[in-house]
Order: sequence, then structure tokens, then C-alpha cells
Amino acid sequence: MSKKIQVGIVGGAGYTGGELLRILINHPDTEIAFVHSNSNAGNYISDVHTDLLGDTDLKFADKLSDNIDVLFLCVGHGDAKKFMVANDIKEHIRIIDLSQDFRLKSHSDQAQDSGLKTRDFIYGLPELQREEIKSAQNIANPGCFATCIQLALLPLAAKGLLNEEVHISATTGSTGAGQSLSSTSHFSWRNNNLSVYKAFGHQHLKEITQSVKQLQNSFKKDINFIPYRGDFARGIMVSAYTEFEGSQEDAEKLYSDYYALHPFTHVSDKNIDLKQVVNTNKCLVHVEKHGNKLMVLSIIDNLLKGASGQAVQNMNLMFGLDEKTGLKLKPVGF
Amino acid sequence: MSKKIQVGIVGGAGYTGGELLRILINHPDTEIAFVHSNSNAGNYISDVHTDLLGDTDLKFADKLSDNIDVLFLCVGHGDAKKFMVANDIKEHIRIIDLSQDFRLKSHSDQAQDSGLKTRDFIYGLPELQREEIKSAQNIANPGCFATCIQLALLPLAAKGLLNEEVHISATTGSTGAGQSLSSTSHFSWRNNNLSVYKAFGHQHLKEITQSVKQLQNSFKKDINFIPYRGDFARGIMVSAYTEFEGSQEDAEKLYSDYYALHPFTHVSDKNIDLKQVVNTNKCLVHVEKHGNKLMVLSIIDNLLKGASGQAVQNMNLMFGLDEKTGLKLKPVGF
Amino acid sequence: MSKKIQVGIVGGAGYTGGELLRILINHPDTEIAFVHSNSNAGNYISDVHTDLLGDTDLKFADKLSDNIDVLFLCVGHGDAKKFMVANDIKEHIRIIDLSQDFRLKSHSDQAQDSGLKTRDFIYGLPELQREEIKSAQNIANPGCFATCIQLALLPLAAKGLLNEEVHISATTGSTGAGQSLSSTSHFSWRNNNLSVYKAFGHQHLKEITQSVKQLQNSFKKDINFIPYRGDFARGIMVSAYTEFEGSQEDAEKLYSDYYALHPFTHVSDKNIDLKQVVNTNKCLVHVEKHGNKLMVLSIIDNLLKGASGQAVQNMNLMFGLDEKTGLKLKPVGF
Amino acid sequence: MSKKIQVGIVGGAGYTGGELLRILINHPDTEIAFVHSNSNAGNYISDVHTDLLGDTDLKFADKLSDNIDVLFLCVGHGDAKKFMVANDIKEHIRIIDLSQDFRLKSHSDQAQDSGLKTRDFIYGLPELQREEIKSAQNIANPGCFATCIQLALLPLAAKGLLNEEVHISATTGSTGAGQSLSSTSHFSWRNNNLSVYKAFGHQHLKEITQSVKQLQNSFKKDINFIPYRGDFARGIMVSAYTEFEGSQEDAEKLYSDYYALHPFTHVSDKNIDLKQVVNTNKCLVHVEKHGNKLMVLSIIDNLLKGASGQAVQNMNLMFGLDEKTGLKLKPVGF
Repeated sequence: MSKKIQVGIVGGAGYTGGELLRILINHPDTEIAFVHSNSNAGNYISDVHTDLLGDTDLKFADKLSDNIDVLFLCVGHGDAKKFMVANDIKEHIRIIDLSQDFRLKSHSDQAQDSGLKTRDFIYGLPELQREEIKSAQNIANPGCFATCIQLALLPLAAKGLLNEEVHISATTGSTGAGQSLSSTSHFSWRNNNLSVYKAFGHQHLKEITQSVKQLQNSFKKDINFIPYRGDFARGIMVSAYTEFEGSQEDAEKLYSDYYALHPFTHVSDKNIDLKQVVNTNKCLVHVEKHGNKLMVLSIIDNLLKGASGQAVQNMNLMFGLDEKTGLKLKPVGF
Repeated sequence: MSKKIQVGIVGGAGYTGGELLRILINHPDTEIAFVHSNSNAGNYISDVHTDLLGDTDLKFADKLSDNIDVLFLCVGHGDAKKFMVANDIKEHIRIIDLSQDFRLKSHSDQAQDSGLKTRDFIYGLPELQREEIKSAQNIANPGCFATCIQLALLPLAAKGLLNEEVHISATTGSTGAGQSLSSTSHFSWRNNNLSVYKAFGHQHLKEITQSVKQLQNSFKKDINFIPYRGDFARGIMVSAYTEFEGSQEDAEKLYSDYYALHPFTHVSDKNIDLKQVVNTNKCLVHVEKHGNKLMVLSIIDNLLKGASGQAVQNMNLMFGLDEKTGLKLKPVGF
Repeated sequence: MSKKIQVGIVGGAGYTGGELLRILINHPDTEIAFVHSNSNAGNYISDVHTDLLGDTDLKFADKLSDNIDVLFLCVGHGDAKKFMVANDIKEHIRIIDLSQDFRLKSHSDQAQDSGLKTRDFIYGLPELQREEIKSAQNIANPGCFATCIQLALLPLAAKGLLNEEVHISATTGSTGAGQSLSSTSHFSWRNNNLSVYKAFGHQHLKEITQSVKQLQNSFKKDINFIPYRGDFARGIMVSAYTEFEGSQEDAEKLYSDYYALHPFTHVSDKNIDLKQVVNTNKCLVHVEKHGNKLMVLSIIDNLLKGASGQAVQNMNLMFGLDEKTGLKLKPVGF
Repeated sequence: MSKKIQVGIVGGAGYTGGELLRILINHPDTEIAFVHSNSNAGNYISDVHTDLLGDTDLKFADKLSDNIDVLFLCVGHGDAKKFMVANDIKEHIRIIDLSQDFRLKSHSDQAQDSGLKTRDFIYGLPELQREEIKSAQNIANPGCFATCIQLALLPLAAKGLLNEEVHISATTGSTGAGQSLSSTSHFSWRNNNLSVYKAFGHQHLKEITQSVKQLQNSFKKDINFIPYRGDFARGIMVSAYTEFEGSQEDAEKLYSDYYALHPFTHVSDKNIDLKQVVNTNKCLVHVEKHGNKLMVLSIIDNLLKGASGQAVQNMNLMFGLDEKTGLKLKPVGF
């Protein structure tokens, strides 16, 4: 590209905003025009994201600018919509929203009702609809659990094979809960601990179901989902199973075919463990047939493929870049 | 008691042997006659279990003695049976075996086949059959996952309410895998990691099913069990769910009634987290009705209620002591 | 004892209050008369210290009572003195204060200035002055770092051997900072992290110096102390070194002799690691001569020997009980 | 560059070999010619370094090739020298050795004695001698502790200000001990634990002293170094202090000036914590004047700036590339 993509970031002081900065600072085709933060305006970015000391001299801004090509909204759930109502975002600016405000089609309708009528949001899961993302003006970036669970289920849905209940347990790292302080984010409590929350009622079930039905409209069964709080900072591991008539080989082929052209999602023929994907934008999937059931394991880094990494992946697609640009990240490994 | 129970321990250098020692050293009604270890004979116990420095001057012995009332077998799976074949254990000595060698009724039959015919082993889960344990000569101490899962399911089975498939995910601490070195016990790998193993095929399913059928002979459905390796040292958390017609209140009453007279298993009306039971012999259970399903969470310390603590609980019952003697342990809390 | 010691606890909802409860619930010679908490009055203790579910039916009280023999103050630094000024504590009631308000002799003087003149506080480190504690009316319970560091240094001071600068690094678990939420207690930050704080200026240096001078009045050198925040919940490990003319054998004898009659502090002739003492009231000490320096390692559980365990040890001494009563705790081991 | 640097790697299955691969796979100016491994020849690299699944299709080779420009030796201490004796490495191939075999000048002499006479190794710490590295034929890559400690001390030595004893405590992650299984790398032991090892006698003291004397030949005092094993996987934090006459401002200027032109080492005017550098090639340094002492904190990722990252940095310098090429790594942050 002759000219770099001009990027604006709103909510840059939080976890997803920080992660986005960590990626974009080294992205060859972008230039960060501003990083907005109400609470930190005027401060160096490296005063908040202290691991960026020496990597950037940027400061947080208290003003927005129209001279950008894309705006990332890294704000809390509900705040993206408020921000858009309160600010007149020029039509030429594309929006990638990391909140849940526009993920559901009914949300998109609501957006139009509330006067945001020129903005149509496309659900930004490339493994579901890469072509739509390429031509999207606005992206609703998927949730972290939602991404990991969909990548476990979509190949089945694409073939109409989700015909019985789905049983899911999944464990998330503490960064999934953001940087606000709470009793369940206190180190003394969470260290070496494990707990279940929002069993059978996690809010991401809605976007999961929406995508499953997009591929397999007939799906009517329950998706039973038990989320756990894990005692690690990064990552989500999902195990999902349901009835499946095919063989182990059928399952492997089904998943390998589905992901063959997707550069971040890979099928492992060996068992997987969470740290294989930490600090990467990858998703690894592993399938095992047991009796009449197919178990699918999937793992992502909740802040990358589950948030800011996928947001950049979507930006790359929207601007005609190679999907992996800026996202060839060194895994932490340990 | 006028005379203390004389205790022998075989395999005292391992995790369960060490944990048994940590309990028995302060048990008011026992005296440790010997702690046998092939590899450590002659060494101080506190050279191996270094946290016992200052608490005991005992040494590991290379010889057994017949002057005991009860023998704890803290050896590997398969080795308990071998030990009993190789050693002539006097008839008056009661045996509490922490391995899996005699947990299944078919094992007990096998034991008789292999010349161990005078030894009949009772499955030592007090919440299943306390009266049988009181009069038992020999105890097969349950597995750790098996204990935690049974305590989640038995109240339902006791009322004949397990009529559909059961879905279980459960995560265990690293001590569940013993002290042998392996790639999955390496700190650099396991720290902040999570992985699934033996999905749908964990060996404890057999003893779980045996107990469920003992209470509800009609049970014929699958128990789907996904075990996880957690990145903590102690504890097991189980979530189990199945279809349940009753209400939340019905479930709470069912579980509270079942455990009313059991001093170590309690029903929590609030959500639970693993560290509530670490370093105790307790099990906490929490039930939640969601749609047509009942979810049961249960937590134990895998080395205590899941192994050595339950072994002492069984000993207490066998010798007519209060069930909690020596087991009022300070929880670690954090 | 014919009659149990009646205990009152102020500030029972915090970490040290909770730890005190975990001990006293099983203490054979005490009865908990009340547990005061402003914020939790009326709630079950097990609603706050949820690991005590099934162990106690006590509730937090909003009123104090005079029908007690001893009052434990488990409140924040500065609040113990305020509490005593605001409340008329009957003269017959002994006080054990876990805050730092009365640890320094100058504090004790201040106490008299502020109208607390009938209360004289004895610094409650049994390894320093067990006899004074036995006859004390009021105890200022030592700080956690202060306890661990003093137990590393006192044998040298007792022989007048602290003649050069002392160099100390020590790492504490997160519970040392209490249960209030802060950026440095956030799991996402603290997990797998390490940091230094209050280098050369930690407030415990004052009580350490006071005790050292009590044994070796000539001591005039710097005690250089670098405290670290560790990524674990419980425990303190100290390494301290200074010039020492004697041999390895001299050092071992010096320390062994000093602690020979102290039931909780033991000299290990092997290297030590933190988890040897977690969930116990013990301190382990290990000495190594290197060149002209003697390095002393010492480890405690910051909430037990460093706080509530030592408070109970002091209570035992004050009431003529065996020093270890109620404190034979099962180590967590792992 | 018109042609990519052809790279060979010996010992690619270990931690430093894996980390080198994670970097070089995305390095724009290198091509991996072969990755040698005795134990894994024929296997996919991603079968061993499983986090690289989807990132590379390379396999381990059992043969070396001469068609390379640089050879990285990622083998155990002692094995680099053996390898060089056993294999005839063509003169045009530059060597970067990550072991300790050639770090000391006396080693280099020995190398010549043992027939490796054409190979002269330059100690590869860019912040000490970047120009020498640029023209070096062979590099002895520094140790991890050695790197972190030198970066804390060299600015003082460069000004001749190390005139009194130096006092160092430093804590390393578990990956510093490599991937071999041992009791101190067992998760059940190391989790939430802390321990000291090789106090006053760590092997890295020799290379530290060599560099200090290179800058300040007069230095004759002790460097007292207490290494700790931390309960995290990656990173080293050092605190070092010594007498210093200047002011806080003097110290800040001294360090800032020294590192002004070094792109990976930065002086933080705020307190630092270990995770600021994890998964980066950076070193952060922070200085604090206390009384007559200057305390210097420094942090690195032991596998990157402490091993493979610095090795690539050295390669970049040797081949005339920008020092940061391929090393703009996304920090893990959490």
C-alpha cells in the first residue's frame, strides 16, 4: 500500500485496547492516529501499558479526529452504542466494535432504530463469513467464548450435523473479565482456584446460536454451556460434544476441509493444551470420536483471536490486506 | 480408648502416604507402628516429606510387623494386590487399600481367585454405605474423581432419578497424578495450562457406575465424563448435569436430606469455589436448576476426601471412633 | 482447664480474623464468645469465610461483650488504637493486637499518652521473650516480615555477632497485603509476576531493629531489606546474610541451641523451600557459610506464624497452656 | 538484503532451540536451512514445539549441511565444545553458541588448546561491546542471569563506580532450568513455592565479573548473589545494590546515557515488574537511591534477552542488519 491505514482507538486503556496497541505498533500497514481515553488523556500509553515502555512514545488523547480510515471501539458492553449516539462519526470511517453491542442481528436493527441507521454491522468471524467481512463497512467483533465455541461447532453446522443437544464446558483466563477489580479477580482468591459462573446462561450463547442457525437453520436443540473461571491470565479452552454418526476419520476430514483455507485455525491430530495458542491469533481444534459422540476441543487466546487479534484480522480483510498481516505473533510457549 | 490403634503404612514415601502421615501424626487415637518404604528405608520421614521437619522423628522401615491393627496400602495401582500375594498379612489386621485394586466387585472376586480368599473388600465411601464400612474387615478406598462425582450423583440415584444421560466435566490438581516425573507434570508446561485427558474413558467411571447401580439398579444411560488437568496442585471440581423434573427447592431438599447425617459433605446454597475445601476432608455440593436440567457442582481435596483423609475416615468408622476424629483440619483458605 | 477461655474477636471478616477463626474453632481450650464485624454483623461467618461452611454456625456480632478473657484485635494498622480509645475494655480482659499499633516501645509510650495508660503491651515473639509473654496482660503481635526476619537474625544478636551490615531479600505472598482490592492484588497482574516494593524502607524494619538491639544493644549497622511481592498466596521466604567469623558447624550449633526449646522453630540441615511451612505455625531456618558470610534462610506462613498462629501461640503462653495447643496443623504440603 | 541468511540450528528440540525457531520463522531476512536434533530427527518441529502447529512444516534433520551462513548451537553446557570437536564446521560458517562453553576468555584459550584454534569467540552482550560483535566471527551468547545482572551493573562499572561489595538477589522462571524433568521442576512442588539455590556460587558470576573488570579493571570486591527459583515459567528479576555517592538524578542520568543508543534496554523512571518484559527481547532497568546505596532493578525474559532473543540480536549485528530485525515481539502483557 502506498499510504498506511490511519487508525483511531477509543478505550485504549483497557485490556483489549492495550492488546490492540501491542499488535498495531508493529503492524506494517497501519499508523495509529490517536488513542482516546477519558481517564488517561495526556498520559503516555506506556504509563498504562507499562510493557510498551521503549516501544512507543504515543500519548492518550482526549479528542477524536476524523482523519482516520478505521475506528476501533474497545469500550464496555453498552458503551459502544452510547459512544456512537454521542459522537458524529463520519461516514467514511469504518468501525470495528469489540463490545457486544452489535453482534446480534436484532442489535443491528435496534441500532437503526436509535438513529444509527446508516451503520450496518457484520459479525466478524472470518471462519464463518470472510467474504462478507471483506466488503463490510462495520464489524461487530465476536466474543471470546463465542469465538472458541463457534470454531468448535461451525464445521458440524455447515453440514447440518448438529441434530442433538450440545454439551460444552469451557474455562477462561482472568483477563476475560477485564481489568476492573472484583472479588473474583483478587489474586489471593483466584490463585489455584476454580469456579463456575453463569452456567447455562452465558450471554455469548446468543451469538453462538445465531451463527449456528445461519449455517444450519434447522438447529433447535439446547446448547448447554458451563463456563469456568480458570486460575491463569490468558486463554480459553472449550470441550464440546454431541452425537455424531460418522467415524473419527470423517470428523477429521470434515474439520480439516472446513478450515483448509483459514490461516489461523488449524486441526491438530494430537491432543492439545491451552498454552499452544497463548499470545497468538490462532485457534487449534482437535476432534475425538467416543462411542456415538464427537468431542471437539478448541483453544484460543481470549485477548487475541478472542478479541483484539481477530479485530485486526477483520481490519486486514476489510482493507484488502493479507489476513495475517501484523498477526504473525511469537507464541509465548511457556 | 484405652489403647491406641496400631497403624502400619506401606508406600509411605508417595503423595497419599505422606498425606496419611500428616493426618495420623496428630490423630489422638492412633500410633504409627511402622512406615514401610522400599526406596527410603532408614531415612527420616521428614527427609522425604520435608514439611514434617520438627513434627516427627520417625524413620522409614524396611520390615513389616504383625503387631498392628490396621494396614494402609498406599501403593500404585496393581501393586496392592501384588503386595498381598507376596506378603502373609495376619488375619487380625484390617486393610485399607488406597489403590484401585479392590474397588470393583469383580476385583473382589478376582482377589478370591488369586488366593486372597479370606479378604473381602468393602467400597469405602461413607456417604454410600457407612454401616457396611463400620463392620468391614477390609476397605477399598475410592478414587478421587470417583469420590467427587459420586457425591454429586448419589442423592439422585438414591431416589431413582438418574434416568437420562449424565454430563460431567471435572478438573483435577497435579497431585492427582502422583509424584512421578512426566511431561505433563513439568512446571514449565503445566503452569497456566489446561488440557483434557482420557475423555469418555477414565478408569473411575467403573466404580462410579457400580455405586450408582447399587442405589438405582435400573440406571442404563451414559455417564459422559471429560477430565481436565488443572494448573493447581490440590483439589477436584466437578460439574455434572442431567435432566431433572423437580424444582430448585426439590433439589436442595433432596441433597440436604441425603447428606444431613454425613459430617464431611455439605450442601451450599451459594455458588462454590475449589479452595473452600483444599486441605480439608470435606466435600461441598451446590445444586442449580436450569431449564429441564439439574447442575450439581461438587468439590473435594483429591488427597484428603479423595484419598488419605477418606481412608482415615474409614478407619475411624471401622474402629468405632467418631467419624471426624483427627480430621478437623484447618482449611488452607488461600 | 475446667473452664474454657472465652474469646472475643474484633475484625473477624478480614484475612487474619478468618485465620484466627480457622484455628480457634478446633482449639480444645477456647470458646468463641463473639466475632465482631461492622460490615458483616448478622451474617454467618461461613458466608464470608466460605471454607468454614459446615464447620461453624457462628454469626458475626455487632456488639461486644465483657464476658471474655481475651480479645483479639484483627483490625487495620491505626485502627487498634482507635478501637481502644473508643471502647472501654474492662481491665480483666487481655488483649492480643495483630496490628502494628503497639509493637514499638515508643508506641507503648504513646498509648499511655493517649489515655490508654493502664495497658502495657509486650512484643509477642516467643522466640525472643517467652517468659515476658507468659505474664503479659497485653500482646503486640509481631508483623509477618518482622517475624521471619527476626527468626533469621536473633540467634546472632543474642551472641553479639551482628557487627556488620545485614543484607536481606524477602518475598511475601499476596495475603500479606490483606483482602482489599488493588492493582497489585489483581490476578491478571500478579499471576506469574514479581516486583519489589518499599525497598530499604519497609515499616517492619523498626520492630526488627528494636528486637535486635534488645539482644545486642551495640548494633549500629544498616539492615538492608528488599521486599518482593511474590505470585503465591501464602508464605514468606527470607534470605539474610552478614559477615560471620565462625564455621558452618558453629553456625548450625548457634541456631540449634537458640531454638532447642522452641517448639515451632526448627533448624534444617538441608536446603529449605517455602511450602514446607505453608498452613503451619512453624518457622524453618537453614544456615550456610559462604566465604566470610553467613547466609540464613527462614520461612513462615505469613498468616500463621506471621499473624494469627503466633497470636494463638501467645494466647496459649499467657493462659498457661501448652504452647502448641490447637496449633498442630496439617501442612498443606502441596 | 538480496539473499536471505541461511541458518542452521543444532539442538532444536530444547527450550532455547524452540525459542530461536519461534523467532526465526518470522524473521524477514533469514531462512532456516536445517534444524538438527538427535532425538527427533524426522519428526515435525511442531510435534515437539506444539505451539508452532500451523506456523511451519519444517522437520528435524539428522544431518548437518555446509550451505549455511550461521550455525546456532542450542546444546547443553559442555556439549558445544564437544560438538565442535566432533564436527568439521567450515570456516565460512559463523557460530553463535548459546552454551557457556566459550563465554570466559580462559575458555576461548582452552578452545584454541583443544584444536579449535581458528575460532575466536566474542562475548555477545551488545550493551557491553556492540562493535566487537558486529565484526565477530563467533559469538558466545551470555547466560540469562549474567545478562540481567550485567545490565544492572555495567553503567556503574563503565564509570569506575563499583568500589564496594555488590549485593544481588535474583529470581528465575522454571524455563531457566531447561526441559529435563527433576524434582524442582515438578509442578506439584514448584507451584506456589520459592527456594534458593547455588547461593554465592552460581556459575554466571564468572562471566559477570569478567565483564565488570573489562569496564573497571580495578574492581576487586565481592559480588554476593543469591539466586531464587520462582514459581513462574519465564523471566528473571534482579535487584542489585551497592554504595553510590551520587544522587538519584545522577544515577538516572548515568543509566539513561549508557543505554541511550541501545534499542532493547530502557530505563524506567517508575517501579518495574517482571511481566513488562515477558515474551520480549527487552531489558528494563530502574534505579533508586536509598541512603548511601543505589538499588538497581532489572528484568528480562530469560529465554529471549537471556538466550535466543539475544542470539538473534547478535546475528543481526554480525550480518549488518538493523539490531531489532525480527525482534519486535508482542509482549505477553499478562
